[in-house]
Amino acid sequence: MKVLLVGDIVGKTGRRMLKEALPRLREEYAIDMVVANGENAAGGNGITHEIMDDLLGSGVDVLTSGNHIFDKKEVFDFLDDVPALLRPLNLPPGTPGHGYVVTATNDIPVAVINVAGRAFMPFQYDDPLQGLDHVLSSLPSEVKVILVDFHAETTSEKIALGWYLDGRVSALVGTHTHVQTADERILPKGTAYITDLGMTGPCDSVIGVKSELVIQKMRTQMPVRFETATGPGQFGGLVVDVDPTNGKALSLHRIFYRE
Amino acid sequence: MKVLLVGDIVGKTGRRMLKEALPRLREEYAIDMVVANGENAAGGNGITHEIMDDLLGSGVDVLTSGNHIFDKKEVFDFLDDVPALLRPLNLPPGTPGHGYVVTATNDIPVAVINVAGRAFMPFQYDDPLQGLDHVLSSLPSEVKVILVDFHAETTSEKIALGWYLDGRVSALVGTHTHVQTADERILPKGTAYITDLGMTGPCDSVIGVKSELVIQKMRTQMPVRFETATGPGQFGGLVVDVDPTNGKALSLHRIFYRE
Amino acid sequence: MKVLLVGDIVGKTGRRMLKEALPRLREEYAIDMVVANGENAAGGNGITHEIMDDLLGSGVDVLTSGNHIFDKKEVFDFLDDVPALLRPLNLPPGTPGHGYVVTATNDIPVAVINVAGRAFMPFQYDDPLQGLDHVLSSLPSEVKVILVDFHAETTSEKIALGWYLDGRVSALVGTHTHVQTADERILPKGTAYITDLGMTGPCDSVIGVKSELVIQKMRTQMPVRFETATGPGQFGGLVVDVDPTNGKALSLHRIFYRE
Amino acid sequence: MKVLLVGDIVGKTGRRMLKEALPRLREEYAIDMVVANGENAAGGNGITHEIMDDLLGSGVDVLTSGNHIFDKKEVFDFLDDVPALLRPLNLPPGTPGHGYVVTATNDIPVAVINVAGRAFMPFQYDDPLQGLDHVLSSLPSEVKVILVDFHAETTSEKIALGWYLDGRVSALVGTHTHVQTADERILPKGTAYITDLGMTGPCDSVIGVKSELVIQKMRTQMPVRFETATGPGQFGGLVVDVDPTNGKALSLHRIFYRE
Ligand SMILES: [Fe+2]
Ligand SMILES: [Fe+2]
Ligand SMILES: [Fe+2]
Ligand SMILES: [Fe+2]
Ligand SMILES: [Fe+2]
Ligand SMILES: [Fe+2]
Ligand SMILES: [Fe+2]
Ligand SMILES: [Fe+2]
Repeated sequence: MKVLLVGDIVGKTGRRMLKEALPRLREEYAIDMVVANGENAAGGNGITHEIMDDLLGSGVDVLTSGNHIFDKKEVFDFLDDVPALLRPLNLPPGTPGHGYVVTATNDIPVAVINVAGRAFMPFQYDDPLQGLDHVLSSLPSEVKVILVDFHAETTSEKIALGWYLDGRVSALVGTHTHVQTADERILPKGTAYITDLGMTGPCDSVIGVKSELVIQKMRTQMPVRFETATGPGQFGGLVVDVDPTNGKALSLHRIFYRE
Repeated sequence: MKVLLVGDIVGKTGRRMLKEALPRLREEYAIDMVVANGENAAGGNGITHEIMDDLLGSGVDVLTSGNHIFDKKEVFDFLDDVPALLRPLNLPPGTPGHGYVVTATNDIPVAVINVAGRAFMPFQYDDPLQGLDHVLSSLPSEVKVILVDFHAETTSEKIALGWYLDGRVSALVGTHTHVQTADERILPKGTAYITDLGMTGPCDSVIGVKSELVIQKMRTQMPVRFETATGPGQFGGLVVDVDPTNGKALSLHRIFYRE
Repeated sequence: MKVLLVGDIVGKTGRRMLKEALPRLREEYAIDMVVANGENAAGGNGITHEIMDDLLGSGVDVLTSGNHIFDKKEVFDFLDDVPALLRPLNLPPGTPGHGYVVTATNDIPVAVINVAGRAFMPFQYDDPLQGLDHVLSSLPSEVKVILVDFHAETTSEKIALGWYLDGRVSALVGTHTHVQTADERILPKGTAYITDLGMTGPCDSVIGVKSELVIQKMRTQMPVRFETATGPGQFGGLVVDVDPTNGKALSLHRIFYRE
Repeated sequence: MKVLLVGDIVGKTGRRMLKEALPRLREEYAIDMVVANGENAAGGNGITHEIMDDLLGSGVDVLTSGNHIFDKKEVFDFLDDVPALLRPLNLPPGTPGHGYVVTATNDIPVAVINVAGRAFMPFQYDDPLQGLDHVLSSLPSEVKVILVDFHAETTSEKIALGWYLDGRVSALVGTHTHVQTADERILPKGTAYITDLGMTGPCDSVIGVKSELVIQKMRTQMPVRFETATGPGQFGGLVVDVDPTNGKALSLHRIFYRE
């Protein structure tokens, strides 16, 4: 089965890019399932019910997220009730929402897990290794296709998790840095890996924010109110072909383009 | 003129990959000049005189570096005397060595500047913007070709510096994360940009270190002595074609491959 | 001469505590001059013109600050014009306001310098050592009494600066952690030192913020909007007796009490 | 019962100061039990079996620790077997050693818990709140006297944990910053609290390290090999009188002096 994984969708431009890309990519790559990170979908910070509906209605099967998931307060009203919108797994017991979901595409069960890193992150997440070990050991044995969005800052934490999970999941894809990396590969035991899918959002920006505001903050070291950039967009994602009988990645194809 | 910029060379594998690649790439792309980051050239940490000679003798014109430049103590014996080995510019006055160099290739003057970022770095560097403004304003006006290695952790700091320098330098290339990014582009005013050139070193590793040791540290949260990985290598670099009359980037070509 | 140095004044409770304390302490210790950190004076974040006037009118001679100085936007309207309100010295050239001031008390010239640390701070400050060396070397030789507020997070950075400045300034007092330390001393060459003056503000709080909100954030790792606590207050300060003829500290007395 | 809690013992000077202080303080305050942090007891980094024996033989009943506990490799040989030497509780399952111990003094059961913070720490600890909740709920009901060493960097994390545990433990004392704070108090529900006990070690130093080396690192931003300072010492601790019938703190007395 062919899975398309999409990096952090940022604001209006990101949603537009996603909606333009999906029908085309679906046809071109015979995509069976789409997983996209929606933590910045609502104006750069968080996600609303309306935007979630829009994205799920556009063909996204599962939305993952990260440190921005709780930015829009209304998310607390529906996070528990929408299995298709994930928050990081490694939050304390009692946290609203779900860190993983088991869904099915063409009768093939698929688990999607969303987990956050600990190095240089704005929140203190629980150990991602313990969390993943626990979920992986609790999945029904018929779930062979397992997709992990690891929302983390450093390359070393992400690559190490790739090696840690090699052969245990179908794909481990990084998000959060908003820049796509060129290191996609299938690890020796069959796990598709990329350090970061990159942002789907406004390309003339600093990871989605108006460049002049980020430069102003760097130059002055004074508080600056960030605004999401407009203008032309970019799309970042990865297509992984997974063998549904054993969950191994068969091939992968990285996608990155600007308008 | 064609410049090849190479990311952090890690250990023996990195040096082997570099030396194998240079003659081939030089021919294939008609390279005029090579700049490579050597901060991890000596077994993963720092650089020795012997290794510096080996790299410069293999066709590297200028070696840049970063936070690891002072790891091998012998570097203090020669850093002042070797203009072709740079350390980050934005260190306090009195620091041994040089943060930039003006050299020439085929009678075309070329400035290479090495500067370090401040977000999440293991040392406290001075402001890179002030440092760069100062150097750029002091360069002779006949120096049109200017290449900057920005050794930094976060995507946002690197991209913001790209926009800050757009039109003022020929290329700004990131190093330090050891993972090549897929976002190379020529910015609107003519500066070639990539967030990270990626590592030239052992590809079955965590940014150069044996994977099992990094995983052990993540799993146990106990001190682990890191060792540089062996095995097959990878090469990461960027070829930029610069117009020597005005210093603008004309085209660029990203190079990444594994053995 | 007797100088009273007061730690971060937090909100309404902090201002009340300060105003109640000053007349009493002034009499008890024969205080000649008062320096207080006002970065949290306006509801916990920043300072307004009205609050600045209130504090200066209550007997504070010089207000220092820190990372919160620019939180209230109106500060940009007057920071350049009020020499008695300092912002950290080690900000880029062109930053509004002043990092130090030379004033006089009973015809004794006194320099007050405000400088920020670099370890674990929310902004990237320039090198405090270079900044201080520069200011100290530029002060007129008749300025013997020199007081430094070092706004920094870690004990090591603060203590190291104490040793660095020993004999060159009359007092180096830390601020920013909002907890008074018990390590006040006169260093061997005559500099009065304390790692942190502590907060003057609501004592039943977490460094000024309502405890339940900070606990909520720790427990949930979700964004929580912080509010300044109310209730009983505390006062934190240090009285230093300085020999005006040579600027050496003669004695010091730490003050900390809760209502 | 009277408990003496002692902050990080640093090197030879720290051990000397402790051994000189214990008999005197034991007599002066009628101490029933001594808990001391030994993470820096062996030359500044870690602890050896010999030094552990020396400290336990000198009258320390329980040794706590922190991020340096695994610095001396020999600790792995005995950490599992010595209930009186604790490592942080909130490490992954399978970590050698124990995060808490239930002992008895004069037939009064006493629990000592060692837990580490997460803000700005050199390792990634699990959630201290979950860890503490779990241990506290598992202690036998006859254990009323509960002492917690919270090894953490920031004042806010420590104070927040104080409020979180108020009424549930007899004392929460901070360690790790090596500077004693002056904020000791009994919280409203009966928990004795101090943000940091401070270092027991060489007082003319930067948190135990030779000052000139720390300054050198700050000035140069180059790697410097740290060495533990020698010279006169300081002692930092807190005496808490706990009601053994209900575990509430009755009074407390902070101790800090230099040679
Ligand atoms: Fe994001
Ligand atoms: Fe994120
Ligand atoms: Fe490197
Ligand atoms: Fe580096
Ligand atoms: Fe403050
Ligand atoms: Fe502050
Ligand atoms: Fe310590
Ligand atoms: Fe520690």
